[in-house]
Amino acid sequence: MPTTVNAYIATAADRPLEPTTIERRDLGPNDVEIAIAYAGICHSDIHTARNEWNGTTFPVVPGHEIAGTVSAVGEGVTRYAVGDRVGVGCFVDSCRECEPCRLGEEQYCERGNTGTYNAVGRDGQRTHGGYSTSIVVDENYVCRIPEGIALDVAAPLLCAGITLYSPLRHWEAGPGKKVAIVGLGGLGHVGVKIAHALGAEVTVLSQSLKKMEDGLRLGADHYYATSDPQTFRELRGRFDLILNTVSANLDIGKYLGMLALDGTLVELGLPEHPIEVPAGALIGKRRSFSGSMIGGIAQTQEMLDFCAEHGIGAEIEVISADKINEAYDRVVASDVRYRFVIDTATL
Amino acid sequence: MPTTVNAYIATAADRPLEPTTIERRDLGPNDVEIAIAYAGICHSDIHTARNEWNGTTFPVVPGHEIAGTVSAVGEGVTRYAVGDRVGVGCFVDSCRECEPCRLGEEQYCERGNTGTYNAVGRDGQRTHGGYSTSIVVDENYVCRIPEGIALDVAAPLLCAGITLYSPLRHWEAGPGKKVAIVGLGGLGHVGVKIAHALGAEVTVLSQSLKKMEDGLRLGADHYYATSDPQTFRELRGRFDLILNTVSANLDIGKYLGMLALDGTLVELGLPEHPIEVPAGALIGKRRSFSGSMIGGIAQTQEMLDFCAEHGIGAEIEVISADKINEAYDRVVASDVRYRFVIDTATL
Repeated sequence: MPTTVNAYIATAADRPLEPTTIERRDLGPNDVEIAIAYAGICHSDIHTARNEWNGTTFPVVPGHEIAGTVSAVGEGVTRYAVGDRVGVGCFVDSCRECEPCRLGEEQYCERGNTGTYNAVGRDGQRTHGGYSTSIVVDENYVCRIPEGIALDVAAPLLCAGITLYSPLRHWEAGPGKKVAIVGLGGLGHVGVKIAHALGAEVTVLSQSLKKMEDGLRLGADHYYATSDPQTFRELRGRFDLILNTVSANLDIGKYLGMLALDGTLVELGLPEHPIEVPAGALIGKRRSFSGSMIGGIAQTQEMLDFCAEHGIGAEIEVISADKINEAYDRVVASDVRYRFVIDTATL
Repeated sequence: MPTTVNAYIATAADRPLEPTTIERRDLGPNDVEIAIAYAGICHSDIHTARNEWNGTTFPVVPGHEIAGTVSAVGEGVTRYAVGDRVGVGCFVDSCRECEPCRLGEEQYCERGNTGTYNAVGRDGQRTHGGYSTSIVVDENYVCRIPEGIALDVAAPLLCAGITLYSPLRHWEAGPGKKVAIVGLGGLGHVGVKIAHALGAEVTVLSQSLKKMEDGLRLGADHYYATSDPQTFRELRGRFDLILNTVSANLDIGKYLGMLALDGTLVELGLPEHPIEVPAGALIGKRRSFSGSMIGGIAQTQEMLDFCAEHGIGAEIEVISADKINEAYDRVVASDVRYRFVIDTATL
């Protein structure tokens, strides 16, 4: 029998989220039931709840940065037991047959993976996310949260953490490499910590120097304001890798100019308009302009293990459920250092 | 004493090239004097002669696809002797001290390499290119043309050949890799030959099917017309590497859509306007949009050796000097299969 659980739900693009109850499916043989402890608030939740991407089917329970403990397991489950500390990220299933899935890059599933919310699962039911007290997920799409990280600071790693970790590993950030992170927000601040722990020389490129003290404390070696034109002259040809966490349309040619020979600038967000790339900025130093999207399940596990080993968690502000709508407005206003996390006990 | 040699010169953007004589510098200790046999006509020559890039200082002798034999060597020259078959490409010097120069990537010299024409050499004199009977070049910027390739079909390899060979090697075209070449012209046709010889599965993406027979004969496995919208649907997610030899502004999002996971589209030409890149086309499959410019001296030598080994030369139409202006118009009209080469004996 489906279980009824508490949740916070968006019923229309122009209405605040509100408390409700939803049903979670019966535990299938490979399913894990998770008692959710914390759920991070990602900007994507807001885009979805407000239908800013025009793809929302209402009602929807957002939340894809989920941390909790296993409360029950299906009869076929082999990797998890009741009481295990676990996390769930942006997707809860994929086709498991296409080449990306077979390579462990389920985020690029050719048939499209099943989003943790605002999607339809194999059972034909709509998926609902982490702003709730419990969720049922196939064990293959669940990660273990090592003892070394508290569940509240672990939650945002499931999206923000892997979104930065995956490109840092793919483009080989490490000792001797100069890495820049554009934007010190929910994504960027975790990126600084991870890039620093990987041994790279880390520079933050932020609009102003307002958060400079934070940036340096989190592990940045350098901090520059992009509102100062001198920044682009001084850093010309400097970086091996630039990760852009800013979704607004930037003058990307100026950022490409800061890449060294064979350097790569990686887009992690989806700006509204196409990005204007001057070909000369690529050709003159064999630079690349690339994109990256979260990461696969195996790499998400690797990221969690890495973060535990290096004492990395997100910088968070824990809120009760009744503050979700206020938190949304503050995220949009960039008024959070650096991630809101919902204490689901308050749902 | 400087030597006076015959040449074809551009005196103004709006005037045809005309016969003249120019002076070549005295042989320095590290210089090689080359009796030029053939000089290819590259579209860049036309852009420069017509000042379409607004960077031309007149008068200028174009030509950076140079093949000939050594006619004299300076006292310090160690690598070449009189009679050796040699070639010169797009540059004749570089700083030799910056990191790209030390890595053998002189094409990306941080102080700017010295162009074979329309530049100023270390001696303070303007450089003039291959539309002449003789040229004096530092031996470090000269390549050996193996016996296996005739000088006339070798000439275009010095620019067109290396422009394609370098990215094919950098992005590891070879067995098991699906490579597409956009545009079957002076650059593209050599790219098809080299990519095929490297063992890749080669597809030509041309505006129409007009040159299909040629493309398949040169080594392409597949040939598609980009004027047919079905092409983009059918080839969605297909290629590991796409090399774009077309300088006109394409709808690049459609081409990026043909890349597989982790695929790269490389720009080889310089379109007039910035290129509009939809970020989603990159992020959804971790694709890259990159640029590449000719190649270093060591790799140019490697390319010539590779081409000799595989019997690769350019497909050419040899012309006498008095046909240069007519050839320019035909290049602009894409009316050449696939490269004009000037017989410098007619200068």
